[in-house]
Amino acid sequence: MMLADLGARVVKVEKPDTGDDSRSYGPFLVGRSLYFERVNHSKESIALDLRAPADLAVARALVAEADVLVENFRPGVMARLGLGPTELLARHPRLVYCSISGFGHSGPWSQLPAYDAVVQGMSGLMAITGSPGGPPVKPGSPVADLSAGLYAFGAIASALLGRATTGSGTHIDIAMYDATVSLLEGAALAYLATGLDPPRMGNAHFAITPFDTFACADREITICAANDLLFGALCGALELPALLADPRFGSNELRLQSRLELKQAIETVLATATAAHWLARLEAAGVPCGPISEVSEAMSSVQTVARQMVVRSGDLPIPGNPVKLSAWPDDGHRRPAPALDEHGAALRSEFT
Amino acid sequence: MMLADLGARVVKVEKPDTGDDSRSYGPFLVGRSLYFERVNHSKESIALDLRAPADLAVARALVAEADVLVENFRPGVMARLGLGPTELLARHPRLVYCSISGFGHSGPWSQLPAYDAVVQGMSGLMAITGSPGGPPVKPGSPVADLSAGLYAFGAIASALLGRATTGSGTHIDIAMYDATVSLLEGAALAYLATGLDPPRMGNAHFAITPFDTFACADREITICAANDLLFGALCGALELPALLADPRFGSNELRLQSRLELKQAIETVLATATAAHWLARLEAAGVPCGPISEVSEAMSSVQTVARQMVVRSGDLPIPGNPVKLSAWPDDGHRRPAPALDEHGAALRSEFT
Repeated sequence: MMLADLGARVVKVEKPDTGDDSRSYGPFLVGRSLYFERVNHSKESIALDLRAPADLAVARALVAEADVLVENFRPGVMARLGLGPTELLARHPRLVYCSISGFGHSGPWSQLPAYDAVVQGMSGLMAITGSPGGPPVKPGSPVADLSAGLYAFGAIASALLGRATTGSGTHIDIAMYDATVSLLEGAALAYLATGLDPPRMGNAHFAITPFDTFACADREITICAANDLLFGALCGALELPALLADPRFGSNELRLQSRLELKQAIETVLATATAAHWLARLEAAGVPCGPISEVSEAMSSVQTVARQMVVRSGDLPIPGNPVKLSAWPDDGHRRPAPALDEHGAALRSEFT
Repeated sequence: MMLADLGARVVKVEKPDTGDDSRSYGPFLVGRSLYFERVNHSKESIALDLRAPADLAVARALVAEADVLVENFRPGVMARLGLGPTELLARHPRLVYCSISGFGHSGPWSQLPAYDAVVQGMSGLMAITGSPGGPPVKPGSPVADLSAGLYAFGAIASALLGRATTGSGTHIDIAMYDATVSLLEGAALAYLATGLDPPRMGNAHFAITPFDTFACADREITICAANDLLFGALCGALELPALLADPRFGSNELRLQSRLELKQAIETVLATATAAHWLARLEAAGVPCGPISEVSEAMSSVQTVARQMVVRSGDLPIPGNPVKLSAWPDDGHRRPAPALDEHGAALRSEFT
């Protein structure tokens, strides 16, 4: 999808009869899967049974002309079909062959089946999400799927760039597991530095405070007073000079030791008015802050509209592209996702 | 960091005296910030005061020879320094100029200060993370920071690839807000399809069940029985033929309506033995499943080791690179992060 968004011609090879499983994934709008639409807009579709020699020959003909092949079978499946990376790169040394799998093409877990939720759990990401006293929580976004796709996007573009110099393609081996482990970031570093498991922190920051969510009269907001200057600005906006003078809160290190007392003192004031009131005051004082927005608020915000983060695929609304390039203006319209085998006849006649 | 990982020469321009703020961010190992090390390995450092004409001239000289400029000031700051995208692209039309900011270079929120936590809250991501009855939860990973960086990685490589054809660079305008909104995925689609806010689902899947975490005698595991075949395999592995025959659980749609009864029936059996016991049985039956790993387990797993997801930056351990390329083998060693201005004299003599 990212490559199609940036102008690549993308041919989607689907199994005959039912096509990609995600054609039947909700939510639906006017009878069409919005999920399928979102990730397949602007693509062409051809239905091929890769176990049938005639169809396999069509696939080979497509590969012969392709710059990039992306596949996400379990490791080994493409090789059994006669389309493995070793075989295809030997035949087409300029090919960029990108495999995306759950655990990668090497290592003892290579053959394990994976879904986003399985990988999120095994990567340690769930262990660092949630309240200190509560159970591990899965982030509401399929970040194992998405981060693997984003690494693949950058890797493919980088490999094409490398090929422009070397003339050679490469096999790219992206694992959802690797991608998700790489998201641990501070928690991974804490483990590498100490050998200990970092605790779940709720919405708080392990090394900075106040840097958390706080309850106002009507709803919670985020406040990030990441240094002494911003802490001073926060105390000013809350009209709490006593807080600024309190020796318990005189430095970030001291504030970390009295995190809960500080949070309580701040929330006592915040409880006297609405989130909208406090956000306006904090913003005026230059304190980084924001609402905990519902999905509806985020998706319809003035910024989302201004940034074209909702676009049209045909007549269906789908999320927009975060890659904004001055040299390639985005008109906010996408070619709709294809029907199964919509371009099959044309592709067969063009490439075979 | 991603570009350095793939072999780019990266020069980090830092403010004099203290350098990048993150030099003082924990965790520390042998007195060095592991965070700074992780994101700055393999780079060169030069200290420049961009408000001082002599240093600004050095910055301009570096830009004149650079393929890519990456900056993450608030929008407008670089232009006030005389280094804005319009000015630099006019002078160096082949430059790829990548800005990463909280809310982007356009729209009414462009000037708002942002930290990862603020953006996570405003993007709707926290609203979809957590239990149905509980408060919004922040994913434990800084996914607003990281997804913005990953989009930038792919965008920069794509822009360089485009330049190879067109001869022209571009301004890339990446917003943490756009990037994080794009992670909403199914939740964004549900809103676009219905106009309603999707509920928080805990660890469950909104459209598939059983696809959740389940308690065993000692700890929780993830089980993803995403279709009828896998549900049958699950019932077999649990020795629960009655479950498979129960009309309440005859299809995914029916199972969704009786999600909690089904979860209870499964957990009643799982409670009789350990997670290790059940994971072995489920794995043998081909049911996608996994432990909820602690960070220590994930970071030291046989797969993490096999996939080189921990490497060495000098003598410090840091997370590895998920981009695995057959044409560019990774020896697992990185050049250590630079001391402040370590390469200043050499860079001045090379470029001015």
